[in-house]
Amino acid sequence: MTSSSISHSLLNAAFTGRLAVVGIGPGAAELLAPVVREELALAQDIVGYTTYVEMAGPFRAEQRVLDSDNRCEMDRARLAFALAAQGRRVAVVSSGDPGIFAMAAAVMEALEQSHDANWHAVELVILPGISAAQVAAARVGAPLGHDFCVLSLSDNLKPWTQIARRLELAAQADLVIALYNPRSVARPQQFAQALDLLGLYRTTTTPVVLGQNVGRPAEVVRVTTLGEIVPEQIDMRTVVIIGSSQTRLFPRLTGGNWVYTPRWYPELSKA
Amino acid sequence: MTSSSISHSLLNAAFTGRLAVVGIGPGAAELLAPVVREELALAQDIVGYTTYVEMAGPFRAEQRVLDSDNRCEMDRARLAFALAAQGRRVAVVSSGDPGIFAMAAAVMEALEQSHDANWHAVELVILPGISAAQVAAARVGAPLGHDFCVLSLSDNLKPWTQIARRLELAAQADLVIALYNPRSVARPQQFAQALDLLGLYRTTTTPVVLGQNVGRPAEVVRVTTLGEIVPEQIDMRTVVIIGSSQTRLFPRLTGGNWVYTPRWYPELSKA
Repeated sequence: MTSSSISHSLLNAAFTGRLAVVGIGPGAAELLAPVVREELALAQDIVGYTTYVEMAGPFRAEQRVLDSDNRCEMDRARLAFALAAQGRRVAVVSSGDPGIFAMAAAVMEALEQSHDANWHAVELVILPGISAAQVAAARVGAPLGHDFCVLSLSDNLKPWTQIARRLELAAQADLVIALYNPRSVARPQQFAQALDLLGLYRTTTTPVVLGQNVGRPAEVVRVTTLGEIVPEQIDMRTVVIIGSSQTRLFPRLTGGNWVYTPRWYPELSKA
Repeated sequence: MTSSSISHSLLNAAFTGRLAVVGIGPGAAELLAPVVREELALAQDIVGYTTYVEMAGPFRAEQRVLDSDNRCEMDRARLAFALAAQGRRVAVVSSGDPGIFAMAAAVMEALEQSHDANWHAVELVILPGISAAQVAAARVGAPLGHDFCVLSLSDNLKPWTQIARRLELAAQADLVIALYNPRSVARPQQFAQALDLLGLYRTTTTPVVLGQNVGRPAEVVRVTTLGEIVPEQIDMRTVVIIGSSQTRLFPRLTGGNWVYTPRWYPELSKA
């Protein structure tokens, strides 16, 4: 599991450049951590997916913006290392928390695979951000107030059999389930399959939160139930939070419902 | 699941006061969201556990600080509603993300249980923060880079049988597992039981991250393995991240190891 490809002589080497993987949260400036703001201000090169780089900006004329619509995260990670290894100060912009279904894992993978000593000599920092499920949860109460899991429904990088198995075990564990990348145009039937699976373990009245474009101007957050989900309201920019057996709804003065999962869990054998 | 105790006449009522449940993240100012900073500046009353209120301050002389060492979250939530219902602007200070094992769920529970129309007329907002597992993860790479769950090991509010069941199912699902409240002085044997359970499903070389006081001056973050965990290094201020079968370690130039969970998951039937 460890690699011997890195020369021990490097242990005394100075850093080359700096690579900061920064989480901009949902995009709104009001949720951007000061340390991320500062890192973006000091960066010489800004690397990222165009949509997120635009949210993180504007940048000064002397800052080089290397944004692209390229969806290959590994390409972006390698570009960032190549620049930092030349001595540049680089910020990789990630939406949400870079550590949660975002850029940090790709950056680590690129580094592990590299035998270039200069890449390993880059000063690498990861700055966390607020992830979409946290924003969606905050809008409606506290659905993640007790044990929960965070799963991606995308089968681009993992087999659907494993996704289905995880869903089933998470449902059996009575965890609240936050789903990222829930429903693509190319595979709407997988989201339907996921709902069918969850329906084996949860009642139709289980609270569900749909957070679309959370923290952005186009934000729409809906509270519904497992039995009343309208799949067409869900796309890849939606985070879906499925309650546990304990998650509760109650009316909100301004309309709609609050949702929360109590901090306690009953002794089920007494039920 | 819904309550009819709230008069419909209230639907047209004006808000009484304002209650903001704010997440201060790990405590460091560099990770405090601007919207939380502003809410704290505008609050007339600051309610919270003394340790967290001290991290959120200092406050101006005219701001009333109602901190306490009282560990009863419900008392604090009810105090906050009582003040806001009188028209005050109140901030409830929560460490980390209020929605993750923190104050938001207690605030929602207090509101649901209340038949006081003035409480329901409070303008209630929840402002998310960065939770301890996110900070610990960022320090060492990207251990939460793929599907994961967040569990509390505390049996104060739920039966140990349910905790053990969740651990076992999460291990079977091959999720990365972040454990909050892992090991108290009063029940060290439960953490040992949890390790025994996880050992049935994970190898001894599984990467483990121990993040103690993350984001605070006393921060200590350790990377170890399931077979080499030293339980005495773990207390209630530690977040423990247990890798999945896919989580990887590799050497870090400055000493120690990076840890990450790849974005992809192999087709196990081919293995």
